[in-house]
Amino acid sequence: MVEIIQNFQELIEEKKWKTLKQELKESEPVRIAEIMEDLPNADAILLFRLLSREQAKETFQHLSHEEQEKIIEGLAMNTGKITSLLNDLDPDDRTAFLEELPGKITQRLLQLLSAEERRISTQLLGYPEDSVGRLMTPEYVAVKPDFTVEQALAHIRKFGKDSETLNVIYVVNDQGKLIDDIRIKEIILASTDQKIADIMDKRFTALSALDDQELAIRAFRDYDRVALPVIDTKGVLLGIVTFDDVMDVAEEESTEDFQRFGSIQDAIINPLKARIFHLYSKRIVWLSVLVFMNVFSGAAIASYEGVIESVVALVFFLPLLIDSGGNAGAQSATLMIRSLAIGDVRPKDWFRLFGKELLVALFLGITMAFAVALVASFRAPEVMVVVMITMVLTVLTGSLVGLLLPFIFTRLKLDPATASAPLITSIADICGVLIYFSIASWYFGI
Amino acid sequence: MVEIIQNFQELIEEKKWKTLKQELKESEPVRIAEIMEDLPNADAILLFRLLSREQAKETFQHLSHEEQEKIIEGLAMNTGKITSLLNDLDPDDRTAFLEELPGKITQRLLQLLSAEERRISTQLLGYPEDSVGRLMTPEYVAVKPDFTVEQALAHIRKFGKDSETLNVIYVVNDQGKLIDDIRIKEIILASTDQKIADIMDKRFTALSALDDQELAIRAFRDYDRVALPVIDTKGVLLGIVTFDDVMDVAEEESTEDFQRFGSIQDAIINPLKARIFHLYSKRIVWLSVLVFMNVFSGAAIASYEGVIESVVALVFFLPLLIDSGGNAGAQSATLMIRSLAIGDVRPKDWFRLFGKELLVALFLGITMAFAVALVASFRAPEVMVVVMITMVLTVLTGSLVGLLLPFIFTRLKLDPATASAPLITSIADICGVLIYFSIASWYFGI
Repeated sequence: MVEIIQNFQELIEEKKWKTLKQELKESEPVRIAEIMEDLPNADAILLFRLLSREQAKETFQHLSHEEQEKIIEGLAMNTGKITSLLNDLDPDDRTAFLEELPGKITQRLLQLLSAEERRISTQLLGYPEDSVGRLMTPEYVAVKPDFTVEQALAHIRKFGKDSETLNVIYVVNDQGKLIDDIRIKEIILASTDQKIADIMDKRFTALSALDDQELAIRAFRDYDRVALPVIDTKGVLLGIVTFDDVMDVAEEESTEDFQRFGSIQDAIINPLKARIFHLYSKRIVWLSVLVFMNVFSGAAIASYEGVIESVVALVFFLPLLIDSGGNAGAQSATLMIRSLAIGDVRPKDWFRLFGKELLVALFLGITMAFAVALVASFRAPEVMVVVMITMVLTVLTGSLVGLLLPFIFTRLKLDPATASAPLITSIADICGVLIYFSIASWYFGI
Repeated sequence: MVEIIQNFQELIEEKKWKTLKQELKESEPVRIAEIMEDLPNADAILLFRLLSREQAKETFQHLSHEEQEKIIEGLAMNTGKITSLLNDLDPDDRTAFLEELPGKITQRLLQLLSAEERRISTQLLGYPEDSVGRLMTPEYVAVKPDFTVEQALAHIRKFGKDSETLNVIYVVNDQGKLIDDIRIKEIILASTDQKIADIMDKRFTALSALDDQELAIRAFRDYDRVALPVIDTKGVLLGIVTFDDVMDVAEEESTEDFQRFGSIQDAIINPLKARIFHLYSKRIVWLSVLVFMNVFSGAAIASYEGVIESVVALVFFLPLLIDSGGNAGAQSATLMIRSLAIGDVRPKDWFRLFGKELLVALFLGITMAFAVALVASFRAPEVMVVVMITMVLTVLTGSLVGLLLPFIFTRLKLDPATASAPLITSIADICGVLIYFSIASWYFGI
């Protein structure tokens, strides 16, 4: 990769435009996009200008949002090129791009679109963020049930050129209501004089334009389709959603969940490219919140100063006990967050899971109490009983906090992954400290 | 959902087979699979027997591996039904199923397959686990470059019936070497007397059968295809991989990473369905390992007993300081694990990231040192300086551990997500304790 980039940079420096054009012609758009991301800004724009119209369109779709913005800025003098680029983009990719821009720039770019393309884009932009409507493209082919297969094929040949996919053909009635989707395979394999109505099975799955995108991800997972139709409340076909756009969203969602669980804010950061201040700002907020939460465990400890002074050995087991609660909690939270995300578990299941977790955590706590008793018996037998009881109770508390927090966040309409491992650790710490020292103070009678 | 299940259970109890059959006929296979998972075993098997052959095949693919096994056991008396079911399954789905079974059962089931189907399955099973070969299906349609479009369409009609998808058609030369892939759209839109060679662009992306499945996931993400061809080392077309199988793998991988990061072993657990002992056993191993790791922080504290006895206020800040290191570490690890998984970062980038992380962590540590100084100045001004210096150093140490561990695990050919939040917390604890008390002992001269 490094050599390829150097190669391109050399060609640019030596102004070997012809070789460069030839090399670009033979490269996959996704590779060109990768190279552009690594080139200095001016070179990247230059490279982009050399691309054919078709390649420019495809390459643009593979660029990161920041790089896309830079290219548009770089082409600023050349409205013609921007206009043709924007008009060439598939409506769903264009929407994804416009959506990331500041409102003013979006407005200016919208003006560059042809009337028809603008109509499509503004319509798509009208749907709420994270709704299926934003992912949808109006470029599909629909046929009527009374068409013969031959007529349908002629219709597909006539109108299929602009369609994003011909893998699935839609059947609508005279009111535009969706009545079936047929895979192209069925149409090709049918005899030409059969009616479309004869090869319909009337079993289809449609999304609503206002549905959440998570629903689309789940539907693609369940139904193994390459595209799904989108309908309005009256059942009228509005557009289609293709698997590639949904796959991108699915990946973003799981990255977001993962990073949030590690308490990184508003995630999806590429650490190689992000600036230092950007990385700092995405991390400092949660870290500071957690510092102030941990002050409570400090305060709790301070109030038991007397116990600590009498039995210093208690301090040896402090990190171990509070960590164990946090670790067990992180496990439960992990299970819940992911199960909620992929739909294995629904918010109303919390009560059933609570009982189960209680038992599991009890067994875990007892096992760990014996493990820690082994250590305590050598080092500080006087605190063994206190440490054992505390272990069982902190693991129980930590696990239940880890289990419940994702549900509580869901209820508050927050991402369950906000119940991050560090947050659970901090809560488990406070509980652990309180449990530990109150049992100790009772046990030693101080 | 609950009502639907009750409805089905009632129909079974009242032996209303006709209504039941009718209701099943109108249901999507994925829904039937869901209902079966929630029904008692005997009822689920009964329901399955009532399905048409086509529906049985599709429903089976949507069942969990445990449910699939139960069905096969339930049908054990009826070899005919098992045979037709196994033969009907798509080769890739059959491989996925056989792979999960104990070796003996797999052998027995393989014997039930027709010679041709067995050949396909054993061939697919011959590829290493997690290789592209296991995901591949040999059911595709290939044409020759000298076919006309009309000939190609006739060929597709003749051989396309058993093909898993007709969305992409492959072009091979006389030696069976793949020379292009063409979307069905291009063929339908071309005029019938054009040669296939004329509509070829010779730009195609192929996977090797021995490639890791992660590579397939990345390729699907990059190239927006619904299917990708699989070739051997000589470039001969062996089969295709379709997006739905890859999407399943992608989802499993990200669930596995997520659960592993929460230190759950060999993950992918549905907590609603898993038995209590199963949940216990997937969690106890890591928890126990962590208990024994934490013994080290206990030992470290014990060796500083003198310092603690003289300055008890040090204990107040212990959870706060060690947690902060762990939290910062969890953040870095999260960023690295996910970036390595989606390919934003490569193993060789660790050094570049190390320098960046050093700066980010330094700024984070300094900010947090001032936050904690604010608290210390009220409560225990005598330890303020020690607490501030420790904060900077533990955040630095924690961050760098969190950054490096995923790379080290990758180098050891382990999943980077093994660098779980709890593991990093425990390591950060030991470092934090040592840093804290050695600075304190130096500062107070004890």
